[in-house]
Amino acid sequence: MTETTAETLADRVREGDLRLHELEDHADADVAAAARRLLVAESSGADVEVLGEYAFDAADADANVENMVGAVQVPLGVAGPVTINGDALSDDRYLPMATTEGALVASINRGCSVLNDAGGATARVTKTGMTRAPVFRVADVAAAEALVGWVRDNVDALRTAAEATTSHGGLVDVTPYVVGNNVYLRFRYDTKDAMGMNMATIATGEACDVIEAETDASLVALSGNLCSDKKPAAVNAVEGRGRSVSADVEIPRETVEDRLHTTPEAIVEINTRKNLVGSAKAGSLGFNAHVANAVAAMFLATGQDEAQVVEGANAITTAETTADGDLYVSVSLASLEVGTVGGGTKLPTQAAGLEILELRGGGDPAGSNADALAEAIAVGALAGELSLLAALGSRHLSSAHADLGR
Amino acid sequence: MTETTAETLADRVREGDLRLHELEDHADADVAAAARRLLVAESSGADVEVLGEYAFDAADADANVENMVGAVQVPLGVAGPVTINGDALSDDRYLPMATTEGALVASINRGCSVLNDAGGATARVTKTGMTRAPVFRVADVAAAEALVGWVRDNVDALRTAAEATTSHGGLVDVTPYVVGNNVYLRFRYDTKDAMGMNMATIATGEACDVIEAETDASLVALSGNLCSDKKPAAVNAVEGRGRSVSADVEIPRETVEDRLHTTPEAIVEINTRKNLVGSAKAGSLGFNAHVANAVAAMFLATGQDEAQVVEGANAITTAETTADGDLYVSVSLASLEVGTVGGGTKLPTQAAGLEILELRGGGDPAGSNADALAEAIAVGALAGELSLLAALGSRHLSSAHADLGR
Amino acid sequence: MTETTAETLADRVREGDLRLHELEDHADADVAAAARRLLVAESSGADVEVLGEYAFDAADADANVENMVGAVQVPLGVAGPVTINGDALSDDRYLPMATTEGALVASINRGCSVLNDAGGATARVTKTGMTRAPVFRVADVAAAEALVGWVRDNVDALRTAAEATTSHGGLVDVTPYVVGNNVYLRFRYDTKDAMGMNMATIATGEACDVIEAETDASLVALSGNLCSDKKPAAVNAVEGRGRSVSADVEIPRETVEDRLHTTPEAIVEINTRKNLVGSAKAGSLGFNAHVANAVAAMFLATGQDEAQVVEGANAITTAETTADGDLYVSVSLASLEVGTVGGGTKLPTQAAGLEILELRGGGDPAGSNADALAEAIAVGALAGELSLLAALGSRHLSSAHADLGR
Amino acid sequence: MTETTAETLADRVREGDLRLHELEDHADADVAAAARRLLVAESSGADVEVLGEYAFDAADADANVENMVGAVQVPLGVAGPVTINGDALSDDRYLPMATTEGALVASINRGCSVLNDAGGATARVTKTGMTRAPVFRVADVAAAEALVGWVRDNVDALRTAAEATTSHGGLVDVTPYVVGNNVYLRFRYDTKDAMGMNMATIATGEACDVIEAETDASLVALSGNLCSDKKPAAVNAVEGRGRSVSADVEIPRETVEDRLHTTPEAIVEINTRKNLVGSAKAGSLGFNAHVANAVAAMFLATGQDEAQVVEGANAITTAETTADGDLYVSVSLASLEVGTVGGGTKLPTQAAGLEILELRGGGDPAGSNADALAEAIAVGALAGELSLLAALGSRHLSSAHADLGR
Repeated sequence: MTETTAETLADRVREGDLRLHELEDHADADVAAAARRLLVAESSGADVEVLGEYAFDAADADANVENMVGAVQVPLGVAGPVTINGDALSDDRYLPMATTEGALVASINRGCSVLNDAGGATARVTKTGMTRAPVFRVADVAAAEALVGWVRDNVDALRTAAEATTSHGGLVDVTPYVVGNNVYLRFRYDTKDAMGMNMATIATGEACDVIEAETDASLVALSGNLCSDKKPAAVNAVEGRGRSVSADVEIPRETVEDRLHTTPEAIVEINTRKNLVGSAKAGSLGFNAHVANAVAAMFLATGQDEAQVVEGANAITTAETTADGDLYVSVSLASLEVGTVGGGTKLPTQAAGLEILELRGGGDPAGSNADALAEAIAVGALAGELSLLAALGSRHLSSAHADLGR
Repeated sequence: MTETTAETLADRVREGDLRLHELEDHADADVAAAARRLLVAESSGADVEVLGEYAFDAADADANVENMVGAVQVPLGVAGPVTINGDALSDDRYLPMATTEGALVASINRGCSVLNDAGGATARVTKTGMTRAPVFRVADVAAAEALVGWVRDNVDALRTAAEATTSHGGLVDVTPYVVGNNVYLRFRYDTKDAMGMNMATIATGEACDVIEAETDASLVALSGNLCSDKKPAAVNAVEGRGRSVSADVEIPRETVEDRLHTTPEAIVEINTRKNLVGSAKAGSLGFNAHVANAVAAMFLATGQDEAQVVEGANAITTAETTADGDLYVSVSLASLEVGTVGGGTKLPTQAAGLEILELRGGGDPAGSNADALAEAIAVGALAGELSLLAALGSRHLSSAHADLGR
Repeated sequence: MTETTAETLADRVREGDLRLHELEDHADADVAAAARRLLVAESSGADVEVLGEYAFDAADADANVENMVGAVQVPLGVAGPVTINGDALSDDRYLPMATTEGALVASINRGCSVLNDAGGATARVTKTGMTRAPVFRVADVAAAEALVGWVRDNVDALRTAAEATTSHGGLVDVTPYVVGNNVYLRFRYDTKDAMGMNMATIATGEACDVIEAETDASLVALSGNLCSDKKPAAVNAVEGRGRSVSADVEIPRETVEDRLHTTPEAIVEINTRKNLVGSAKAGSLGFNAHVANAVAAMFLATGQDEAQVVEGANAITTAETTADGDLYVSVSLASLEVGTVGGGTKLPTQAAGLEILELRGGGDPAGSNADALAEAIAVGALAGELSLLAALGSRHLSSAHADLGR
Repeated sequence: MTETTAETLADRVREGDLRLHELEDHADADVAAAARRLLVAESSGADVEVLGEYAFDAADADANVENMVGAVQVPLGVAGPVTINGDALSDDRYLPMATTEGALVASINRGCSVLNDAGGATARVTKTGMTRAPVFRVADVAAAEALVGWVRDNVDALRTAAEATTSHGGLVDVTPYVVGNNVYLRFRYDTKDAMGMNMATIATGEACDVIEAETDASLVALSGNLCSDKKPAAVNAVEGRGRSVSADVEIPRETVEDRLHTTPEAIVEINTRKNLVGSAKAGSLGFNAHVANAVAAMFLATGQDEAQVVEGANAITTAETTADGDLYVSVSLASLEVGTVGGGTKLPTQAAGLEILELRGGGDPAGSNADALAEAIAVGALAGELSLLAALGSRHLSSAHADLGR
């Protein structure tokens, strides 16, 4: 009897005997991936061997990917340790960051160092809730108004149905939106340490069944885009999704001058002209310098959903001089969708990323690990904002010095 | 003489003799990373050994990360091969996708299969240009208006200065925006096969020097957020950044029914109520189902900047029935920032991802590889949209069938 | 003793004895206005006599304008009568419209006629609430989070304070938003038949006093722009302000063809490509053809605040063909700020405008007149949308016919 | 033979012999309006006589309204005179303002007075162009890309066609936008002293004929909402429409303290927390306090299109302290659509409003009167912003004083 090797599997695909996604039915996952590498290499002429040098069992990634051929490896650096004065996380931590953008980790590291000089950064989660917003079709606007009333009167029934699907999550509220004969119901859940998109979807599905059974409304789609997942939408920037989290710091003027080679006034001016007024003119939902960089790098390092970097960019940075002439800087991320259980968090390198933050798995109390992760990312974003603003400011200053030297 | 090991390096950090970012000065990059793993593990109690199982020379990631401790590994799957009827890319390709979101590759793969049944997807880049928009402070609005006039009259001088910094890029145009005593100049470049952010920044810096030398304007920041990089901004969604790229397909009704188990009408209805009207009500810049998923996965697989997934989500999906009753679906990504040279594209696994697409390195003519990558991603996004809309539609249909069966 | 005439008053201003805004202290309001006309005419060379031919006592406009010189006269037409199948208003009404844009009233009138043929338009108010959102400065993000908690725990105390200022209004809810050390509290009120901006401002002022007395927060501004008044803001488009009101109609195919000379399919296509996809690409909060026209004209005719046309334009128009091949059209205005008491509603011509709608003064029950006015405006907007879409469609059709005739 | 009176005309309508819009065919316009008043009064029970007390010939409003029943009268006040240091207008002017919002004119008047103390306000138009953006349907994205290329190559032919329709206007440029099989072409015109919407529409219609004749594109609608007219759209806020106009002033600290009873620092803080950060959090395109108030009142006073107040609200207010400790404030209106000829400008009271500004009719050179009107409105808006910010600041200060007094 012939052993099933990558080559024999590949042959069966070439012969039309198997389809590419069926290989795991006939060999273990690592062999299946190897077979696909053969086929892809053959088709494209690519040298893809490096994709096979991954450090986990392919079978363990079964819940994360299909048609697996291997893994992409993204360099991981650390910034910090940085002092985080959060509610869920109050300690010093290294911030793990996976990125291919040179200078990013160095820049955030410099920011962390200055935060530490100032006693660390304060961080707080100010709102929590994962959302899912199905869209229903009704007869007309009179029926829409009636459905809105029905939902208001039957939120307990919806909660019962929704919460029956989960031992962890809880329905927080349901907000209706009417557009003609469309009714969108934005369900918001406390999903504890899970990012919660799946939990919210399943729970909402049950609630939708109740609505369809009890009213004349017809479900069109379980997501009607008022959730809004992985889209740059004002509803998230205004009302939040996942965690709304803020971090801030007050930095003594001397520290700004000595460590950042600029002044509080220069940073405030740059923040106003660039992050506030420039973003205003750009029609932006993001009033910051590069918050998405910290979010993307820490998402990747900790197994979050990379496509949700989109919502993570809904952030506002403020800067002001205090009455004492010091510098206050804050960053507020409206819709940071994070979890420490489920999804990509189980993969070995991602789990290690969470372990660096000491946040792997469920927290005690439930939800506290995800809160802590949100606080850590907000502090990373703050460090990044501070560092980039200072870099612009010091260039400004050196340019000003050059002017004086003329 | 003692050999420098990770342990001895770590000791020197513990003793305050070295700082964490200085290790590469005293050992090779892999040893430095190993030393950092020791320190991070010690500090957090984390087991981070798996982070060290990376398949590249740490020294080769020197331009991509600082304070490297290892690498994150993200499962990579392939969808396709799919037939891409593009301008820069007209052939069948596997689409490499790195993700931790289960079912994503399978869903896009299903979409690719249906695209193939319909003869493949058409794709075109309709606008190109990487932007950088410095902000200048001027005396008042009269000076702002004067600067706008000066720029209009001196665009050739700005071009000369900007283009002197690069052998590849070309300045396309400069668009001024005035807000009080702030003047933002959005420089747009053809950066060929590079994503081009660095090229645009350096070139714009030179142009700014000319402006400061020739006028009374003072540069406040080389990026004034009208670029707009890594923020969800209307200026990108409306005017484009990087590549504006569209893909579409016409699918016979029978294919929709047989392969997707739904109808053109159901898909059109869902697209309208969810992607168009729902997004409208959400105040969104993204009128699509989950374009960011395809963008994020292909960005990660090909070494793009993950934080630029933000702009990649500025996409509109349309669906309509044709006169013949078939289904037309399109997706248009306004601001897809991609390159096949530079940045993360040089890393081994990412280079392999590009090789799968046969797009590694510079194209012939220059720019054609990045165009082709944009077309491939647009087709991947189209496959994803189609598949998700169909899934919603078939559930709808089965639910309708259940209704009839009552 | 000399009688005070316009001429003598004007002389005193010329001599520096009186300032322009002090004239009412020395003469009746009509004489004061006449004196100002003399002065303005003298200064500008303008012939302004016609401004003095107003049909009300200047003293009666005392609460509406200062430095009055007369009145602007805007032609008023009527559309309809149209059948409104609303909740607060279920009857036939002429719609009064003040405008200087030729063809507008005719167009809406045509729309009304078609609505009548279809049995009238359905209309419903789906959400109500006038908002005011003060901004507070707090120490840091920890204090911000604490204030959010305090507000949640003390909403009853805030309600008591707020409602003490008014015999009509009621506080519905308070929604907090945090940005760094800024906390915005969006107070939402049921203001019955008043548009309610003043009521909301005064009531919120009292609530702010409680907050400042009981917490360390400092009020920075009674309006922090999250209200958001007279600005094109997503918070209004998403969450509503004033009345969220929708109107719709189902029009038999024959009526579309015979009366509008187009087809349901043509109207649906135009609505999709223009109002939905075009607006999406424009980065718009208004997904309609010209809802602002109906809003502006009816606002002017009924004494509403013309600057609030801004929010009135946050409207979405949808169009679809029904299973029977008929045409369904809806319009949903998210933030229509209307009242039938207070403000400009007391002026004679504006009161007459409200009388034409039979909606002058307070309703029974309280709030029903403002609801009815919202329904009437929504129906006017629907008529306008229908008429313009049909005009585009019939041109399309005639062009199509011309094509066939070639 | 019976004379045609309002009563006899009304009878013929009651008898079904005439329709409401046909009355002008059987009597002069004033009698027709009187007849309609009879009918409307009868139908509603309203007392509408005051609507008939208008001060113009109804026939002269023929181009402005249909189904005329009379006129609405809006109180008109003046602010100023204020010193405008504009490019098109450099002189002192009274600002005519029609409003029903008490305290508005007084507030702006106070602002004007402070502007004068500071030597007047500077104002400049920084961009000009009325737009119209038809939407075309093409076969697919390949055809879309081809059309974009065709337009780029044939802009001269489009210009020739467009400009053949007008002796005044000139086509400035055409910007294409692609969404799937939709191509939107944003035509931008210099329409001189006309607001220019009609001119732009007619000219674009001719250009569309050329496109349809020369390409396979089909015109779907002459306006595809990328114009974007009377909608709150980012395309206008970013790229401008009509006039982009800014005004600013530098006010000595003493003036701020003595006249406005506040400090530059307080005004800057309020502007930042409210107009910038608050608007950012609101997802707004308007970063100002109440610019729409000045725009609406001056639009109404000068015969502009009231529905275009929507775009007029796309404004950003900035405030900063200067190096000398004085206060700098600016306001920038991105899309102010104004004209001094055509539309409502011919009506007697509106013409008088323009005469007060000395801007009635066409300017010399052509376009200069509309520029001047834009500058005047910008200065009125600046005065309003300054006054409201100061009011908030002085309340703040008095509250601070009260704190100290405790």
